[in-house]
Formats: sequence, structure tokens, C-alpha cells
Amino acid sequence: MPRTRIHNFSISLDGFATGEPQSLEAPFGHAGQRLHQWMFATRFWDPSGSAGVDDAFAQQFAVGIGAEIMGSNKFGPPGWQDDESWTGWWGEDPPFHTPVFVLTHRPRPALTMGGGTTFHFIEASPSEALSAAQEAADGLDVRVGGGPTVVRDFLAAGLVDHLHLVQVPILLGRGVRLWDGLEGVEESFDVESVASPSGVVHLTFTRRTD
Amino acid sequence: MPRTRIHNFSISLDGFATGEPQSLEAPFGHAGQRLHQWMFATRFWDPSGSAGVDDAFAQQFAVGIGAEIMGSNKFGPPGWQDDESWTGWWGEDPPFHTPVFVLTHRPRPALTMGGGTTFHFIEASPSEALSAAQEAADGLDVRVGGGPTVVRDFLAAGLVDHLHLVQVPILLGRGVRLWDGLEGVEESFDVESVASPSGVVHLTFTRRTD
Ligand SMILES: NC(=O)c1ccc[n+]([C@@H]2O[C@H](COP(=O)([O-])OP(=O)(O)OC[C@H]3O[C@@H](n4cnc5c(N)ncnc54)[C@H](OP(=O)(O)O)[C@@H]3O)[C@@H](O)[C@H]2O)c1
Ligand SMILES: NC(=O)c1ccc[n+]([C@@H]2O[C@H](COP(=O)([O-])OP(=O)(O)OC[C@H]3O[C@@H](n4cnc5c(N)ncnc54)[C@H](OP(=O)(O)O)[C@@H]3O)[C@@H](O)[C@H]2O)c1
Repeated sequence: MPRTRIHNFSISLDGFATGEPQSLEAPFGHAGQRLHQWMFATRFWDPSGSAGVDDAFAQQFAVGIGAEIMGSNKFGPPGWQDDESWTGWWGEDPPFHTPVFVLTHRPRPALTMGGGTTFHFIEASPSEALSAAQEAADGLDVRVGGGPTVVRDFLAAGLVDHLHLVQVPILLGRGVRLWDGLEGVEESFDVESVASPSGVVHLTFTRRTD
Repeated sequence: MPRTRIHNFSISLDGFATGEPQSLEAPFGHAGQRLHQWMFATRFWDPSGSAGVDDAFAQQFAVGIGAEIMGSNKFGPPGWQDDESWTGWWGEDPPFHTPVFVLTHRPRPALTMGGGTTFHFIEASPSEALSAAQEAADGLDVRVGGGPTVVRDFLAAGLVDHLHLVQVPILLGRGVRLWDGLEGVEESFDVESVASPSGVVHLTFTRRTD
């Protein structure tokens, strides 16, 4: 059975997955790059980077993935919907290399980029979006790419099979929280924690099969 | 120099240090005993318990401590101030064995219990309370014992030298949060994380001396 997976999703110790305000100049607001510095230091990101536990987790990002689902605020800064020339943050060759389904209340025609990435803009419930992505993934897994609002919605709907979180030891104080409204969600998962020498903690939630 | 320390302070993955509502029957509300099960399983709590990393951390609780400061809601359930016979949750021989300063807006006369514990009820700012506790501690360290409101106030006032947190992989969803209003507080500390085989993660914040 294909799985629905989340990878390299980084949160602060106080549970924020982005700072504020989100803008063209600062996609993560006052968080800057602090939530992903652990990843920039790995081989996954930089050939001269580290090859330890952070890298092992980071590399899972693309393995066996056939489509991604992302939220509107991950695709662009506030107001991107009014800019017909906006094609995402990632330039000509986005790092997805699969169909990507962008959830938005203001859909537009699909956008084909280099390297196998096509953005489809859809207004759909989480389970409808997952069906569309699973069909496009053709037997491979679907990644839910964020941001926190979309991850939270998919967790609340019980649609996630595997969640890899990276807890960074900073206190952002404000931004968008991952955990709101998810009381008891851990009961459906086996949870494992690993502290990395880099200072982050990797948490994996694997859906129970019993 | 004596230090101000916090030990065995347990929070859920979403940052709650207690559930709700707090009551005589359920001091931690809907959290029940889930935040401290890791501790009940150690030798610190139970002679037949484990003696690994959880126990090593737990045992630091009393080492070199000469006084404790706690909040009113740790001392008793809502309304304890109206009950003259309330002497705390801990019976005749509380586990503190030092003077304990209970912060409350409704002070009452001091209460001497067995085993060296005396409860002093004071209305004071965090730094005033710390001065009183340091004097009583006679050169030893002062422990800030919780709850989350008091821990947060002491962190915000920059009065904490050592903070040991235990992150339990459950999502409480509601209760009293530890982290509100503490943006950037980690900048004054070296932060270390250790995952325990029991499933919890120990986080230590040690005040930077530079
Ligand atoms: N920490 C990490 O690892 C990580 C990972 C990915 C992204 N991020 C960051 O997270 C931030 C974005 O997260 P976010 O929580 O603000 O937003 P988001 O989850 O990216 O997007 C939420 C938006 O998507 C649209 N949407 C969601 N569900 C929909 C549905 N069922 N139907 C139609 N539209 C739907 C809505 O936008 P409209 O109403 O405008 O259409 C909604 O406001 C960015 O800063 C990004 O960089 C962080
Ligand atoms: N997770 C853990 O490891 C841990 C550790 C300890 C306790 N707890 C739990 O935490 C809960 C209590 O925490 P909480 O955040 O609700 O309350 P708390 O921190 O124990 O107490 C807060 C109360 O103390 C009094 N207070 C605080 N500062 C004061 C000051 N400067 N001057 C005078 N009074 C002051 C006020 O009460 P009044 O206005 O009523 O006087 C205030 O409402 C309990 O459920 C307890 O079991 C958890």
C-alpha cells in the first residue's frame, strides 16, 4: 500500500513551523533560516556536508515519492495569487521532480516546470487532494510538504502514515504552530526520538497497523 | 555562586506542563499521570525501578538544594486557600526536606511539616522570592519547583541558571503551556538534548557564562 509521508518538517521547541510575517524577502518571517540550518549542513543539501543521522533522515525526502501536496503559503508569499508570473520559490528546476498539488482557494491552470515538476492548483478537501495525488503518484508514496496548516489538517483527518519532525532548540515565540487541535493524535502512532550531535531532535511517527 | 535550578520538569510534545481542569481528584487534569510516568519507572521513585539516563537525571532533584520556590497551584487544588486544614499534597513528610516558599496572593502563617520541610507563604516578585529562598538556602542552590506559570516567570526574569526539561511524546492539546512569551530565551543558554530508551527526551539548558 502506498503511504502518505511527511519529511524534514522542522519546528521550534515551542512548536512553530514558521515565524512571522511571511514575505517575499523572508519566507519564514523572523525565523529566517534557523529552522533548516541542520539540513543545510548535510550532504543531502551540500556535497561537502555531514553524512550522519541528520543526513540519513534528510535523504528520505525523495525516496519512493510520486507526488507532493503543499499549501498555498508554501508555494508563494502572501499575494502570489495576484501575480500571474509567480512560478514558486524554486526557479526553473524545482526540487520535487513529480506532480505537485498546491491547495488554494484561487486555482489557476497547471504549470509545467523543468525536471519533471508540474504544479497543479486545486481546491479540495485533504482526502480529495490525497486521492488526486495518489492517482498521479502511480503506486508510489505521496509526500505532504507543508506548511503547518496543511500538515495539521492532514494529521487531524487521519491521513498521515509517516511523520518525520525535526525539533530545533530555539524558541520562536510566534508564527504558525503545528500542534493546535491535535490532542491525542500520538495514540495512532509509534513515536521514536533520536537526538543528533548537531543539537536537533528527530521525531518519527509511524502509523500503528494493529 | 549558588545556582537557581529546575529539575524533572515534564512537558508534552505540544508544550503543556499540566492538563486541565486542575482539581483535588486530578491535580494534572486530563493529563493524569502521563507526564511523570518516566519518573515513576526510575529508582529515584521506586527502588525496583530503572537506573539509566532517566534515573540519572531524576536523582539531581535534591542534590545541593537548600530551598524550593513553588507556585500556588502546585501547592494545592483551586480553592485550597479557603481550606485552613490544607497542608499540601504530600502528607506529613513532604519530599522537599528544606524551606519551601509558596508564591500566593493570599499568604498564611508558615507551616512546619516533618522531615525538615517548612512551607512559607509569600506574596513577592520572582527576584524578591529568590532572595528570600537564597537566604534560607544558606549557600546551597534554590530549586524552582513549578508549576509552568512560575517557571515561565522565572525564565522571563532571567533568574534561571539550570533548566532540566523532560519532553514526553504525547499531545495534550490543552492545559498550561510552558513556553508562552519566551521568544529567544535559548540565547542565554547552552542547550543539550538526549533521547532516552524510555521514549522521553531530556533537554538541559545551562546558562552561558560568557
Ligand atoms: N518548517 C518546515 O519544515 C516547513 C515546511 C514547509 C513550509 N514551511 C513554511 O510554512 C509556511 C506556510 O505554512 P502555513 O501554515 O502558513 O500555510 P500552508 O499550510 O502552506 O497553506 C495554507 C493555505 O493553503 C490553502 N489551503 C489549505 N487547505 C486548503 C483546502 N483544503 N482547499 C483550498 N485551499 C487550501 C489556503 O490558502 P488560500 O486560502 O490563500 O488559498 C490556506 O491558507 C511558509 O512560511 C513556509 O515556508 C515550513
Ligand atoms: N510538569 C511538571 O513537571 C510540573 C511541575 C510542577 C507542577 N506541575 C503542575 O502545574 C500545575 C500548576 O501550575 P500553574 O502554572 O497552574 O500554577 P503555578 O505556577 O503553580 O502557580 C501560579 C499561581 O501562583 C501564584 N503566584 C505566582 N506568582 C506569584 C507572585 N509573584 N506573587 C504572588 N502569587 C504568585 C498565583 O496564585 P494566586 O493568585 O492564587 O495566589 C498564580 O496563579 C499543577 O497542575 C501542578 O501539578 C507540573
